[in-house]
Amino acid sequence: MSPAMKAENQPQEELTSPENTISNDELHQKSKVTVVGSGNWGSVATKLIASNTLKLTSFHDEVRMWVFEETLPSGEKLSEVINKTNENVKYLPGIKLGKNVVADPDLENAVRDANMLVFVTPHQFMEGICRKLVGKIREDAEAISLIKGMEVKMEGPCMISTLITEQLGINCCVLMGANIAHEIAQEKFSEATVGYRTNRGIAEKWVRLFYTPYFIVSAVQDVEGVELCGTLKNVVAIGAGFVDGLEMGNNTKAAIMRIGLREMKAFSKLLFSSVKDSTFFESCGVADLITTCLGGRNRKVAEAFAKNGGKRSFDVLEAEMLQGQKLQGVSTAREVYEVLSHRGWLELFPLFTTVHEICIGHLPPTAIVEHSERAPKFSLVEGSAQYY
Amino acid sequence: MSPAMKAENQPQEELTSPENTISNDELHQKSKVTVVGSGNWGSVATKLIASNTLKLTSFHDEVRMWVFEETLPSGEKLSEVINKTNENVKYLPGIKLGKNVVADPDLENAVRDANMLVFVTPHQFMEGICRKLVGKIREDAEAISLIKGMEVKMEGPCMISTLITEQLGINCCVLMGANIAHEIAQEKFSEATVGYRTNRGIAEKWVRLFYTPYFIVSAVQDVEGVELCGTLKNVVAIGAGFVDGLEMGNNTKAAIMRIGLREMKAFSKLLFSSVKDSTFFESCGVADLITTCLGGRNRKVAEAFAKNGGKRSFDVLEAEMLQGQKLQGVSTAREVYEVLSHRGWLELFPLFTTVHEICIGHLPPTAIVEHSERAPKFSLVEGSAQYY
Repeated sequence: MSPAMKAENQPQEELTSPENTISNDELHQKSKVTVVGSGNWGSVATKLIASNTLKLTSFHDEVRMWVFEETLPSGEKLSEVINKTNENVKYLPGIKLGKNVVADPDLENAVRDANMLVFVTPHQFMEGICRKLVGKIREDAEAISLIKGMEVKMEGPCMISTLITEQLGINCCVLMGANIAHEIAQEKFSEATVGYRTNRGIAEKWVRLFYTPYFIVSAVQDVEGVELCGTLKNVVAIGAGFVDGLEMGNNTKAAIMRIGLREMKAFSKLLFSSVKDSTFFESCGVADLITTCLGGRNRKVAEAFAKNGGKRSFDVLEAEMLQGQKLQGVSTAREVYEVLSHRGWLELFPLFTTVHEICIGHLPPTAIVEHSERAPKFSLVEGSAQYY
Repeated sequence: MSPAMKAENQPQEELTSPENTISNDELHQKSKVTVVGSGNWGSVATKLIASNTLKLTSFHDEVRMWVFEETLPSGEKLSEVINKTNENVKYLPGIKLGKNVVADPDLENAVRDANMLVFVTPHQFMEGICRKLVGKIREDAEAISLIKGMEVKMEGPCMISTLITEQLGINCCVLMGANIAHEIAQEKFSEATVGYRTNRGIAEKWVRLFYTPYFIVSAVQDVEGVELCGTLKNVVAIGAGFVDGLEMGNNTKAAIMRIGLREMKAFSKLLFSSVKDSTFFESCGVADLITTCLGGRNRKVAEAFAKNGGKRSFDVLEAEMLQGQKLQGVSTAREVYEVLSHRGWLELFPLFTTVHEICIGHLPPTAIVEHSERAPKFSLVEGSAQYY
């Protein structure tokens, strides 16, 4: 064992090599992949997967992609154009998906033969999709969710992976990370994290399916931690955007991001005691947080909000800046606030709490770094990271 | 105990409140503080400290600041101007230090009565300063080092805190964090981390001395981890600068920063088994890394280096861009490389290794994210964060 590995307690479950051995079973029963979803990220994911199924003998070459059918301005059907041009001309123009990708507008047909289901749709569609899929999928199917926008309800978060497992009766992993779709489409170097519950073999298989030299995937046994990172980071990005709008500088922004990461960790662990601190060092944690707080629309609109001293509401700014899209961060901040309030935890999460109160106009944007009795609250859970 | 605290294993050693109780001893033996150093950061630290000694009864009001004497263009002595104007007109113009600050050009005299010594000089001066101080300081003196630029020698890092302890026979804490001096001078919200060895009471005292509503200080029992963060982050910042210069986007930059944080952690733990993972979640860890990779001169010159395809050396760029200052990141990368090479660990630290090889022209800047057999090496220690 190498010294570094030793020092880090070399995991028994190292999952990052794309060249893991393939069992005889796998060789004889090739896996068949269907991607449920064909938006921007769904199309990029399909491209990644399709490049691997061609190379790896344990997968059927063909990757089926369910397309929510649309009629293009030309009068053609989106799915037909994808199959003709090998491009998702609407959501990922200019990028070839791979000749082994088959767009299929029929959901039932798309999933029928697949034993590996990749879910990557807007989260609000997932309940309806699951309902349609009950009884229509293979019994041995495995699922993975790439959906970042789960809801946090008062009784706790409504995990998409849990929804899939409960509705369809199948195991569900998640894949999250610092994954700006168009950068990965251009094959720029990036990383991602697979979260799995118990079955290490399945996690390995998902890693192999997504891993490319420019898209490094690793797996951690922590579905909830990985999945929560993808949602909670948007709340922190709102806070980081306020700092940008107030022109407080990099020190302050870094401090807010760090406090945010700590609250993400504390919140996740309060809700799921199984969540691991180390997950927050993975791509789904610190890296995705950084990406989201550097770019991203949550940060951008929050910056505009603070620049306007909170005098123009998020609704107005969203309408102006995002062509009708809604910010996940603002609604997640409200949802998180409801959980905190419901459980009496508001004071333990001063950043999450303050972000929400600024969003709804109860506090001015400057409250994010106010030198008042509020600020020291940031230290309430301070240092708590140090004793595991 | 609050639920969040419980979930995070509420530390026995929570050290963040500035209002800790003061023992009788302290009340009767007021501490006397001397700051050794009066550059930009030294002056800001003095300002922070001086605002607190006025308020806290356990400290003498007066803060002495040793000034390396200089004659200003006006012909006046720097120390005299500081004492007259209450400003360090050369290194922190426009900011009042506090009327209770006394600049003293005589090192021996400056430290004579102090039992709390704050060291904040360029690291290359520390050996000489320590030599001069032997036998000249109070026996009960305590030290803290704010010096970020320690050297990494082949046999391991030469910790400034260790140098102070060994040379002067006194205990030494460290204070590090996302601390851009001029932002703190303007009282913008920021955080810092005190690292201490064993004595929690002393750490508390240092926290009280520095803590203000806009400068939140917490303490962790991990001197080496805190101190190493301050040095190793500069190597990562060079890598982040390459990514900026190559215009690879935020995904890639976040990935490089994350891999860098992981290598900082792994390297520190290999050298000191006492180093705690949680330290890297503190301000000295992730927050300082973010600040340094967003701004900072290491990032900036590395960006220019990559933009020029590595065709103009760091020496040339430094001379052009930094008015004769040297980049710590480049020399630290070389020092770290020597340690890794010496111990046979090069392959375990692909990012640190690659940064150095790019700096010396053995690899092109694109190697930082090359889609070659090098890239997957990043995954060699991947996932290792997950199993403590």
